Amino acid sequence: MIEIITIGDELISGSTADENARFIGEALTSLGLTVSKITTVGDAVEDIENALESIRGETRFVLITGGLGPTEDDRTARAAAKAFGRKLLLNQEAFNALEEKLEKFGRTVSMAGRKQAMLPERSRIVPNPVGTACGFLIEDGKRQFVFLPGVPEEVRAITESFLAGHLKTFMGSKQVILSRTLKVFGLWESAIQERLQGALPDRSTASLAYYPKYPEIRLKINGRGTDTAQVQKDISRFQEIIYEKIGEYIYSDKDELLEEVVGFLLKKNRATLAVAESCTGGLITHRLTNISGSSQFLERSFVVYSNRAKEELLNIPQDMLRDSGAVSEPVARFMAKAAGELSGTTYGLAVTGIAGPTGGSAEKPVGTVFIGISSASDTRVSQHLFHGSRERIKLMSSQVALNLLRKTILGKTKQ
Amino acid sequence: MIEIITIGDELISGSTADENARFIGEALTSLGLTVSKITTVGDAVEDIENALESIRGETRFVLITGGLGPTEDDRTARAAAKAFGRKLLLNQEAFNALEEKLEKFGRTVSMAGRKQAMLPERSRIVPNPVGTACGFLIEDGKRQFVFLPGVPEEVRAITESFLAGHLKTFMGSKQVILSRTLKVFGLWESAIQERLQGALPDRSTASLAYYPKYPEIRLKINGRGTDTAQVQKDISRFQEIIYEKIGEYIYSDKDELLEEVVGFLLKKNRATLAVAESCTGGLITHRLTNISGSSQFLERSFVVYSNRAKEELLNIPQDMLRDSGAVSEPVARFMAKAAGELSGTTYGLAVTGIAGPTGGSAEKPVGTVFIGISSASDTRVSQHLFHGSRERIKLMSSQVALNLLRKTILGKTKQ
Repeated sequence: MIEIITIGDELISGSTADENARFIGEALTSLGLTVSKITTVGDAVEDIENALESIRGETRFVLITGGLGPTEDDRTARAAAKAFGRKLLLNQEAFNALEEKLEKFGRTVSMAGRKQAMLPERSRIVPNPVGTACGFLIEDGKRQFVFLPGVPEEVRAITESFLAGHLKTFMGSKQVILSRTLKVFGLWESAIQERLQGALPDRSTASLAYYPKYPEIRLKINGRGTDTAQVQKDISRFQEIIYEKIGEYIYSDKDELLEEVVGFLLKKNRATLAVAESCTGGLITHRLTNISGSSQFLERSFVVYSNRAKEELLNIPQDMLRDSGAVSEPVARFMAKAAGELSGTTYGLAVTGIAGPTGGSAEKPVGTVFIGISSASDTRVSQHLFHGSRERIKLMSSQVALNLLRKTILGKTKQ
Repeated sequence: MIEIITIGDELISGSTADENARFIGEALTSLGLTVSKITTVGDAVEDIENALESIRGETRFVLITGGLGPTEDDRTARAAAKAFGRKLLLNQEAFNALEEKLEKFGRTVSMAGRKQAMLPERSRIVPNPVGTACGFLIEDGKRQFVFLPGVPEEVRAITESFLAGHLKTFMGSKQVILSRTLKVFGLWESAIQERLQGALPDRSTASLAYYPKYPEIRLKINGRGTDTAQVQKDISRFQEIIYEKIGEYIYSDKDELLEEVVGFLLKKNRATLAVAESCTGGLITHRLTNISGSSQFLERSFVVYSNRAKEELLNIPQDMLRDSGAVSEPVARFMAKAAGELSGTTYGLAVTGIAGPTGGSAEKPVGTVFIGISSASDTRVSQHLFHGSRERIKLMSSQVALNLLRKTILGKTKQ
């Protein structure tokens, strides 16, 4: 059994989300290991000590994060020394590692920094590939305690460089752990469950986990067993069945972002894109330009927030704006066509809508959004009604627009 | 002392973030109460029972969330009955509340639903204003245990409708709790600490907390005491001193977003804005359009990702692009001026740079960014070098650009 202890006043006061507990839980689960308890306490020595002493009898491994920094309120090493009845000593290996890291920045170890190398005696060092404070490992009978810094980036790096491998060996796992992640958009969790009901084999080395993150669901097929070929086969069988039932909603089986998939498809087809955004206000373009190499497919975008901008940049006729309104089918159509034609791109993508919270009417309530996609051969517009806050409506509009573009590219270019 | 127990396999497996622990921690902290420990366990009865029995001696109040639903894997009531040695009985009050709620939807209580009203004997009901499962309260000696459902929206609603008031009375808190939040950009946490070193009074009802969230720091002045006037005075004194030391880096004392402040200043001065973005790829415009009412000040934006777009949309001379390069002082200047002039806006804001990870050179490494701001009277350009991932460089560029715009507006319009 494995327990996690996370340390920090900022965690119990709710000022910071406990990213580490979540990340470690996910990492260990994907290794086929089970966390039985997570305990969170503040920075007080006695609270940390108490948490270290309240480990369950059957627990073999305890992972502790937080409180290893240079400042006065980092007290984990001290609490550990007390809990295990060991002296707090300068660990030469930890000190050398610290010195070496600081040297690169032309700095020397300060008194405060020196504190980071004061560890309980007989600790083993756990190298930190990204930060200055190294972690340490204490063996107490058959039980191991690994102490890591609290910075999420450092926990992630150490999990990869040390923890995952160490734990697999220590917990004596001979299991093969494999997984595949499908990204689903357009069906909520309950609808996916309903469609998959009874379809997946009960007796399998594979199992399915749902990770909803608005507005998408990550479906993770976890496979676990001693026979690699069998685990691979079971995962593939799961994937086949899931594709049979909800394949049209799956946009990636490689845990990619939707904008990555769209960018990949555009590049693969040597296609280019121009975007005309109104209610999404630049979000679609922001998402696409997060992808490295986006300059290969994104030519330009127009954020035509005012009617004047719509007229001047995209030549939308004044009477169309007046008669149909800026949020309308003809305007979305015109925007998509103009964006593509003016920019000389393969595709033009346009969104116009009412993100709210004000600006809605009985006829066109908040959340009404038109999405247009143009290519040399045709232009299609669809109408949508999204719900929630301004941010959610922007996000959902960008998501649906990117997904429609993905389907359009797939439809026009046999993959 | 107060403890929190959160229950759910999805929490220990890392598939869901523990929103409830964070939210409750924050709510109780703002009531002047301190959470001493948070324990998270899975759905197994013995684990829940174990957690309920491992409460510290000095703890007077325990809040438990999760596992009250209708399905088989909701086992909290059963575990509580075992832990307190009480029978699990149909609670008539809970059943009636459930029946009443379902009636509104024209439904009756199913067998599975009935389970939600099976509670440990002598439980008091805690009404749930939004969901079907009510919470319950168990008194055990001088200690109270309050059990709530795990759905975050329901926890929030019950905290407001019941928990906050109940806890203040139960814990006998007569304290006044006040706070003020300053938003700081341009100084890291360690630099702020250095500048404030020794400056803030030791004996005060106020204290200072740091909440870094890249690329900003939230500084929260918390005041706590029995005398409202004194607490207010102490908070104001803290604020004065902090402004004296680092005032030029504070952009809000109302916990606002930078884009909100910029939007507010533009609206207040009846000023308008056009943005020309290259490396930020729409992010500046996305941030500004997250603000409700942004159509009052944002006229349009040009995301001129290609050189062709820079030439066609902003009339940047080809030879300027060729001689100076797209990432250069003259191009940033031209972009800002053209954006403002073509759009007829008060200000033009432009960003051109290298977001990476590729595209850098010895002369212009990744992270090189030029920011231009134009108005009727002048155009200023500044050069920056930012570090980190593509996303971080985009975010930092947008932040510095918005902050420079804020300072420009403040400089041109005496506030």
